[in-house]
Amino acid sequence: MRVITFERYGAPEVLQYQEVGEQVPSDNEVLIRVKAIGLNRAESMWRHGEYVEPVNLPARLGYESAGIVSAVGANVTHVSPGDAVSTIPSFSLNDYGMYGEEVLAPAHAVVKHLSSLSFAEAVSIWNPYITPYGALIATGLLKATDTVLINAASSSVGVGTIQMVNMMGATSVALTRTREKRQQLLDAGAQYVIATEEQDLVAEVMNITDGQGASIIFDPVGGAHFPQLISALTPGGTVFIYGALSTDVTPLPILDVIAKKPIIRGYNLFEITTHPESQKKAVEFISRGLESGALKPLIEKTFKFDEMVQAHHYLEKSQHLGRIVVVVD
Amino acid sequence: MRVITFERYGAPEVLQYQEVGEQVPSDNEVLIRVKAIGLNRAESMWRHGEYVEPVNLPARLGYESAGIVSAVGANVTHVSPGDAVSTIPSFSLNDYGMYGEEVLAPAHAVVKHLSSLSFAEAVSIWNPYITPYGALIATGLLKATDTVLINAASSSVGVGTIQMVNMMGATSVALTRTREKRQQLLDAGAQYVIATEEQDLVAEVMNITDGQGASIIFDPVGGAHFPQLISALTPGGTVFIYGALSTDVTPLPILDVIAKKPIIRGYNLFEITTHPESQKKAVEFISRGLESGALKPLIEKTFKFDEMVQAHHYLEKSQHLGRIVVVVD
Repeated sequence: MRVITFERYGAPEVLQYQEVGEQVPSDNEVLIRVKAIGLNRAESMWRHGEYVEPVNLPARLGYESAGIVSAVGANVTHVSPGDAVSTIPSFSLNDYGMYGEEVLAPAHAVVKHLSSLSFAEAVSIWNPYITPYGALIATGLLKATDTVLINAASSSVGVGTIQMVNMMGATSVALTRTREKRQQLLDAGAQYVIATEEQDLVAEVMNITDGQGASIIFDPVGGAHFPQLISALTPGGTVFIYGALSTDVTPLPILDVIAKKPIIRGYNLFEITTHPESQKKAVEFISRGLESGALKPLIEKTFKFDEMVQAHHYLEKSQHLGRIVVVVD
Repeated sequence: MRVITFERYGAPEVLQYQEVGEQVPSDNEVLIRVKAIGLNRAESMWRHGEYVEPVNLPARLGYESAGIVSAVGANVTHVSPGDAVSTIPSFSLNDYGMYGEEVLAPAHAVVKHLSSLSFAEAVSIWNPYITPYGALIATGLLKATDTVLINAASSSVGVGTIQMVNMMGATSVALTRTREKRQQLLDAGAQYVIATEEQDLVAEVMNITDGQGASIIFDPVGGAHFPQLISALTPGGTVFIYGALSTDVTPLPILDVIAKKPIIRGYNLFEITTHPESQKKAVEFISRGLESGALKPLIEKTFKFDEMVQAHHYLEKSQHLGRIVVVVD
């Protein structure tokens, strides 16, 4: 059995396949024979040593895998060998990494997903849906009258957010850099699409909202364009910052901020996933959405386990729409 | 009777004294024979044409005056000629300016203050106390267990915030650039003082809070040091931005923001003062604090009406502690 590791930061080529011996779960661990791995942009930042958390080298990586339980620790009662399970990002990559043919996972991260899902689908739901769930649903913030700007809308979280906003009867506005993915985003459910490098973002948003501005902005980018997002926000609106895809400085437009009184919140899904009760509610909400068809995981492309380097290159091109999945034989 | 105006932006010398004829209040206005004027940093920004609101030239200025009512409009019943009153910032400087020997004010801005206050004290309470009241008290946010960092602590709002934080049993930490005003700030009630250019802000805050970080930050500055404030905040803490004293770019430290999940709120006192019910509650709360002695306006220096240019120069030096007041004969 092999796992993927890296000893230094850099391009996808730093990833190495490493043979591991027999892995034995400790009391609160689950051993999973992996069938699919869902890729997150966070893992690319992690590999570059540019994540929110410092990386201890040599490092593992990977938040989301799905597969069959091969063994469980003494304290684990909620899953058993033979169960089809998937993992929820709720641990440090310094402690666990899901990129492997067989991996140990902390018991609190392991859930049985809906049996109607394939393994590839099961690694395409937790980060994409728990991220908007925690910000919009668990807070009680999202109302049917809201207009939500979804930046980097073609990411798997972006598509998940479009679906969740629609599910709640609110208005989803997908932001994407160019016209290229416009039709795909409409097909994915976006009610409006704005190509931010080709259209006047603020004018378009004001047009959509009858001059009011968007009430919620969901932004994993930051960077030089951040002040434009504030300009497109309604007074008193809320901005969630949940990622740092731009490496540019993110200027806070102070005068606008004082006049418009936005609520700008840093956010990550760990505030949901690291609390068992919150995680349980999230899983239930998302499972209901999946069953009703309101939520439907969108898989862009699959790679083989031996193609993880290519898969990371593809991830970093940011030209995909939806989830990149690595399947394991 | 004279009022103060300016026809172009610039240094305090752009201020001009202009004779006005008889002023007659319209239905919802009050005419006040002015006895004192309280100076706000916002008025300096206004004079520079760098305020949150665009300036219509030629312009008036001034948010806070106190004096004796000389006439009232037909709809005004809450004050009468002869009453001692003061004005609450709750209007656009494009519509009204309080720098004058006699001025018209919108009725909703005019209140009878406590009779125990001098006119100079009466122009030293509304902006300094309503600003922290709206952020900390009206929101229900401030608890006795909070540690509040008060940036630009020597401003009149800074001193007002120190007093209000103390009044609620919480911990006040005054931030000031150098050691120079340390003792004055301690005398003004600050429980801790940090000289941000001479001490390690984050280390000092962690020391005061047993490594937890401050729970609330009250910042009218922004600028290049803003990321340090976020570093000194406890996870999930709240930052109020209510001013833009720095003209530098204010970088938002995105990775820290994602990891620490702060709530960063733009804020100004108009969200209280432009709603009659909220304004009334604010006035009652502040009056109780003044009566009990927990709130005590701090006047730094008084100038004469003919010295408004000098008073603005003094204001812009930012070397004062507390309120600058212009008295009118």
